Amino acid sequence: MTGPAAELAALGIDIGGTKVAGGIVAPDGTVLATARRATPGASESETEDAIVAVVDELADGHDGELVGVGVGAAGWFDRTGDTVLFSPHLAWRHSSLRKDLTARLRRPMWVGNDADAAAWAEYRYGAARGADLALMITLGTGIGGGIVMDGRLQRGSHGVAGEWGHMRVVPDGRLCACGNRGCWEQYASGTALGQAAREVARRSPAAAERLMERVHSEPDRITGEDVARAAAGGDPLALELVTDVGVWLGQGIADLAAVLDPEVVVIGGGVSKLGEMVLGPARDRLDRALPGRGFRPGPRIVAAELGPQAGLVGAADLVRYELSSSGRQPPPGAGPLRP
Amino acid sequence: MTGPAAELAALGIDIGGTKVAGGIVAPDGTVLATARRATPGASESETEDAIVAVVDELADGHDGELVGVGVGAAGWFDRTGDTVLFSPHLAWRHSSLRKDLTARLRRPMWVGNDADAAAWAEYRYGAARGADLALMITLGTGIGGGIVMDGRLQRGSHGVAGEWGHMRVVPDGRLCACGNRGCWEQYASGTALGQAAREVARRSPAAAERLMERVHSEPDRITGEDVARAAAGGDPLALELVTDVGVWLGQGIADLAAVLDPEVVVIGGGVSKLGEMVLGPARDRLDRALPGRGFRPGPRIVAAELGPQAGLVGAADLVRYELSSSGRQPPPGAGPLRP
Repeated sequence: MTGPAAELAALGIDIGGTKVAGGIVAPDGTVLATARRATPGASESETEDAIVAVVDELADGHDGELVGVGVGAAGWFDRTGDTVLFSPHLAWRHSSLRKDLTARLRRPMWVGNDADAAAWAEYRYGAARGADLALMITLGTGIGGGIVMDGRLQRGSHGVAGEWGHMRVVPDGRLCACGNRGCWEQYASGTALGQAAREVARRSPAAAERLMERVHSEPDRITGEDVARAAAGGDPLALELVTDVGVWLGQGIADLAAVLDPEVVVIGGGVSKLGEMVLGPARDRLDRALPGRGFRPGPRIVAAELGPQAGLVGAADLVRYELSSSGRQPPPGAGPLRP
Repeated sequence: MTGPAAELAALGIDIGGTKVAGGIVAPDGTVLATARRATPGASESETEDAIVAVVDELADGHDGELVGVGVGAAGWFDRTGDTVLFSPHLAWRHSSLRKDLTARLRRPMWVGNDADAAAWAEYRYGAARGADLALMITLGTGIGGGIVMDGRLQRGSHGVAGEWGHMRVVPDGRLCACGNRGCWEQYASGTALGQAAREVARRSPAAAERLMERVHSEPDRITGEDVARAAAGGDPLALELVTDVGVWLGQGIADLAAVLDPEVVVIGGGVSKLGEMVLGPARDRLDRALPGRGFRPGPRIVAAELGPQAGLVGAADLVRYELSSSGRQPPPGAGPLRP
């Protein structure tokens, strides 16, 4: 990255289902300041208002120059980033998000998928530094994905590459929010963890005793988070369920290795906080399932390094990167966004 | 493609399980002359001898300049093309094929995967011309694959991208030659077609009456080729089996669309000769299985245009391309290979 834009801080925004998180990100990836707003109801206009409020707060408190604003969200964007095509998990969607935000913020913007932004952040500053082909897999409500190849984010012909959470891994399998059955994310995600635990608890409350204690014996209230905590506390059932998720993760990575042959696969998102409890079984599975194993190298499976800020760090860096690589100058008189 | 090398004809070789086919390929993709040799036994040295014999025959009969020799084979090559890593279907393999052939032929060489070569040929001269992201799927004994993205063949971090025939599409499914179970190519290939027919014929010879006529009532002798011919002749059972292969093809393309989001998917290989009998059901399946369908465009599924010569045409063009894009001059005094 070269040129004046590469030397400036940028503002990154990560839009989740319930909150908008923002940060000012230095060229070396350091987060200099953060802000967040809840988006109760998460309507389009409320989300937009929250984004503008977060940008205002951060820009007001920031003395230096800001090159632009990057926004990552859990939706499928078209190739230009202008349009949200589809969002399996987020009711929030907008047909012209970038246009509307640009009109209100009057700054250069990058708008795109949150897992793409996280992939970029891990490539630039985290676990995938220097990799010629890195895949990011975020394990949360579903599975998000991003591809960095030859130093560029690869978004496919229509902007929606990396949506491997919706590969079908089980014919006639579990119903997915996308409308299909048997999608990978129904077997390897926080949602999958919670669902498997609820099934066991309903059928056999005694077997799920320690999980049931956490939810006042109401099996339907068990979440993936509960299972993760119980596993961290040594509950054998929870550990088994977490291992299952790890095995499904490793199997899917074997499938991705058959398709893309990556050098490294970075695992992020909430479920990845379980660390080796998930990554260990994933590596074991990959070792046994990689097509051509023994004759070819497989990808390394590594934990994300940037944590929950990866999305906003990547989004900020992507607006900086687009300006630098396009040879465009930073915006005229690039002072604070609200002088 | 620019430079002197781009203006010269090149020699392409396609190595199959039983034969070596070669051709002289003009810069516009026209095949100017062909030659072939059987490789009975298909040992490494016999295959090498056959390649040299085909090259000699073609070069002797060719008056113009030849820029080099491209060789495509049904194996997994490392990223440099120097080494054959693995071949699920071909006993023939060699640890240093390119080095050995270069020593014998004394010409610039491209050596690599046959489906990669076919993908390149379809991108340069066939059904994927101008596509920003094209996938090639060859349906034969197994499933071969190649990726052309942004005008370049993408081979992954270790040279083995595009081996999606070994994605697992059915947990605990049919045993594959690669050692895994449930690989895509066990459900969508010529082998799959033959196997499904043999199963029906063994269980219910009456149901498979018209297929049985072709094999003197020995169900174990039914091949994919037999089923294809019977389907072309209107046999309802054969048509149903061909439709099944098409449905599995479309499902796998939906999975690849989730991962890579291609613009076009080109179907080649022997099974693709069935045309719309396979492609129709594949398109129907893709329409119903594409994740995010209705909100995003999917890939076009099209028949390969170059037929069985795609591999040698692509291999020839790849040696030309590598010389042109590396800025290297054509070999000094590039006359006929055997003046």
